[in-house]
Amino acid sequence: MQQAIADHIDARLPETIESLKTLTRQPSVSAQRLGVRECGEMTVEMLRGAGFDAELVPTADPDYPGIIAELKGASDKTLLFYNHYDVQPPDPLDEWETPPFEPVERNGHLYGRGISDDKGPIIARLAAVSAVRETLGELPVTIRWCMEGAEEIGSPGFHEFVEANADRLRSDACIWEGGGVNWDGRPLITLGVKGLLYVELECRSAATDSHSSYAPVVPNPAWRLVWALNTLKDPGERVALPGFYDSVRPALEREIEAIAGLPDTSREFLHDLGVEMAVGEASGYEFRRRLIQEPTANIAGFGSGYTGEGAKTVTPAVAKAKLDFRLVPNQNPDEILASLRKHLDAHGFSDVAVSVLSAEHPARTPLDDPFVALVADTARRVYGADAYFMPSMTGTGPQHPVQHILGVPVASCGVDYPGNRIHAPNENIRLDYFRLGVLHAAELITALGE
Amino acid sequence: MQQAIADHIDARLPETIESLKTLTRQPSVSAQRLGVRECGEMTVEMLRGAGFDAELVPTADPDYPGIIAELKGASDKTLLFYNHYDVQPPDPLDEWETPPFEPVERNGHLYGRGISDDKGPIIARLAAVSAVRETLGELPVTIRWCMEGAEEIGSPGFHEFVEANADRLRSDACIWEGGGVNWDGRPLITLGVKGLLYVELECRSAATDSHSSYAPVVPNPAWRLVWALNTLKDPGERVALPGFYDSVRPALEREIEAIAGLPDTSREFLHDLGVEMAVGEASGYEFRRRLIQEPTANIAGFGSGYTGEGAKTVTPAVAKAKLDFRLVPNQNPDEILASLRKHLDAHGFSDVAVSVLSAEHPARTPLDDPFVALVADTARRVYGADAYFMPSMTGTGPQHPVQHILGVPVASCGVDYPGNRIHAPNENIRLDYFRLGVLHAAELITALGE
Repeated sequence: MQQAIADHIDARLPETIESLKTLTRQPSVSAQRLGVRECGEMTVEMLRGAGFDAELVPTADPDYPGIIAELKGASDKTLLFYNHYDVQPPDPLDEWETPPFEPVERNGHLYGRGISDDKGPIIARLAAVSAVRETLGELPVTIRWCMEGAEEIGSPGFHEFVEANADRLRSDACIWEGGGVNWDGRPLITLGVKGLLYVELECRSAATDSHSSYAPVVPNPAWRLVWALNTLKDPGERVALPGFYDSVRPALEREIEAIAGLPDTSREFLHDLGVEMAVGEASGYEFRRRLIQEPTANIAGFGSGYTGEGAKTVTPAVAKAKLDFRLVPNQNPDEILASLRKHLDAHGFSDVAVSVLSAEHPARTPLDDPFVALVADTARRVYGADAYFMPSMTGTGPQHPVQHILGVPVASCGVDYPGNRIHAPNENIRLDYFRLGVLHAAELITALGE
Repeated sequence: MQQAIADHIDARLPETIESLKTLTRQPSVSAQRLGVRECGEMTVEMLRGAGFDAELVPTADPDYPGIIAELKGASDKTLLFYNHYDVQPPDPLDEWETPPFEPVERNGHLYGRGISDDKGPIIARLAAVSAVRETLGELPVTIRWCMEGAEEIGSPGFHEFVEANADRLRSDACIWEGGGVNWDGRPLITLGVKGLLYVELECRSAATDSHSSYAPVVPNPAWRLVWALNTLKDPGERVALPGFYDSVRPALEREIEAIAGLPDTSREFLHDLGVEMAVGEASGYEFRRRLIQEPTANIAGFGSGYTGEGAKTVTPAVAKAKLDFRLVPNQNPDEILASLRKHLDAHGFSDVAVSVLSAEHPARTPLDDPFVALVADTARRVYGADAYFMPSMTGTGPQHPVQHILGVPVASCGVDYPGNRIHAPNENIRLDYFRLGVLHAAELITALGE
């Protein structure tokens, strides 16, 4: 990269951080429909200020407009940015050291809800685009930008949004949200997401709760749900849904290498969560392999009857469980759902209703895609270290439509570090890593144009 | 019974009902420690007003004093009354047609929290005692009275209370709370209670909830509890605890006859609760047999993770289940507890902690006890109909110490009818049945002295 671009980024850094504070001060809590559109409008204004053609684009729900923006470059190459401008709810509020929507700098960190997920990356990319454009006079590639305002509630309608606007979004490559460095400061490039099937199981046996002295004759839906769930997974952690593992594509050699190359942080990871022993006593490679390659059936919630203090002798009328399946290539949430319904029926649990709360396909960009090499090369130049590769996030995002409707390879390049506490109180970024994230984005834009 | 006693009861009925309203206006919600002692003091004053030696007697918890009272009679025979002066919380308040602690008469019913459970019976017995004493000049038998103020929270310390005061409570027979008539107006005499073991199972696997994307490595306590519970009972409803059924005394011939003699109300019962089909599709005799003879393992509550609206992708740190075992003679809650712990350990669930919230032995008075015949004979004279016999309540009460420490046969004789809605909004008594309950108590006192 030209030194002039780096100098531009550094000269403007205070201003860039002010912009990030401004965007963070605007709440945009999608789960609470709080300030989302206002934040979308503010983001569009910032994009226009940097020279983009930008507009809010309606989605199925008018509270959550998408954003499409474009800034033409000299070559016919096109780079797509994916981000979201909504944030998680700030609760629990009393665990924040400073108010979530009043961003504050402390000891080289910047704190605030959304500062890392996902407003920091938006501002970092804007700063990179401006630095390259103002230094070179023109962008070497066209930048397209796709943002949504409902990522934190599972991106409802995003698939349709991408489909409807495919012509305005199609690009040569996409930089996803997230990305940044690992604990040791080496860059971490993530190349995919797990899929998700999130369902609620409900069993009802009566109109109202009843006195538990009637339990000899009144069917108990909590027992029904315990028995039904028990058929889905055994203590060996193997999911018993027929065909669940059939479509799992075995790990590729490059994926195994990448996972093996990641540092072993299993002890710190478990210590942070207060967990004594990992599932299957996994550690080292197997610990990381599980996180990246293993599909799950997780009970996210189980509620029935009386759960307050002390004793209440009641037979519940209803029992509900929330269950999320994280899926890996090439599992398909629709097939898993069909298998779940069929399995419950076959085991005598047709009284257990299943409703889908969220569904997302897994997606991965192959490690040998040339774009991955470009992201890694530019990272090496900025960070002075080889990148780690995560074949997939452990979590889920709406990457499937981008990879499969737009046909675009996707990688991450961001401002995160492992202590950023996204979705939690005291969400933060480290300003030194934020700066490196801006530099990396600028380096990438420049390199893609060469 | 002498007509004079009945006339006395009828003449004083308005006054008796006023006393019941007064006692009901004094809240005594043991679960909330609300007004309990004040109600105890008011009850003692009423007892003294009727000629009793009466006093509050301390228990382990000073908020819940017991009451012991005595009124000497002409013979050396002694009848014990058991009652409790505390009441259930009135929630949900918005479902009361009139405020729970402002008793109101409507269409031959009297409404208020505790009016049936258990203040109506207290006032009814007081009225009966006064009528007999004032008409005959002296009671034919000595009446002893044992009351507690913590029955609705599981009678903590009642066993010790009876033990400590056994000499002042020992009697020839005991009239329990409850009792009254069935839907058809025929008297219903209940002769026992089920036992109870109420436990909380808790499994914890982490210090805090974590993002469910970590589920491949973070143990899920909700799954652990599902698997543990699944080993306790199968869909066939048979409790799988080793030895659970071993000490169950088979139903006696007289018990089978009594159960067979009860009317079949299973359809109305299920309809009221909005239940389509009873456990095991039981109906008729089997339905009643289950309610009276069958021990249970009931999930009263299961709570883990996120149970609100919508989706939250979380792996819970902790899962808790409340479980109540209703026990029949001769099951022993201490043995069941030991078996539960051993069973969980044997199945690999030593990580599931068990804490006891309540424990009570079952208790029954044999159907062929002469006191039962006396209660039935006097009931026939008052109600003009043969009594039904319930060998046991479906529920639990602290009857074991009375039967086994004091060695006293126990039967019911009360003012209830099946629509009294105890523990629920709009608790009520029917005034005609209340009057018959007073008459029955007076008849019983008189007959016992003969």
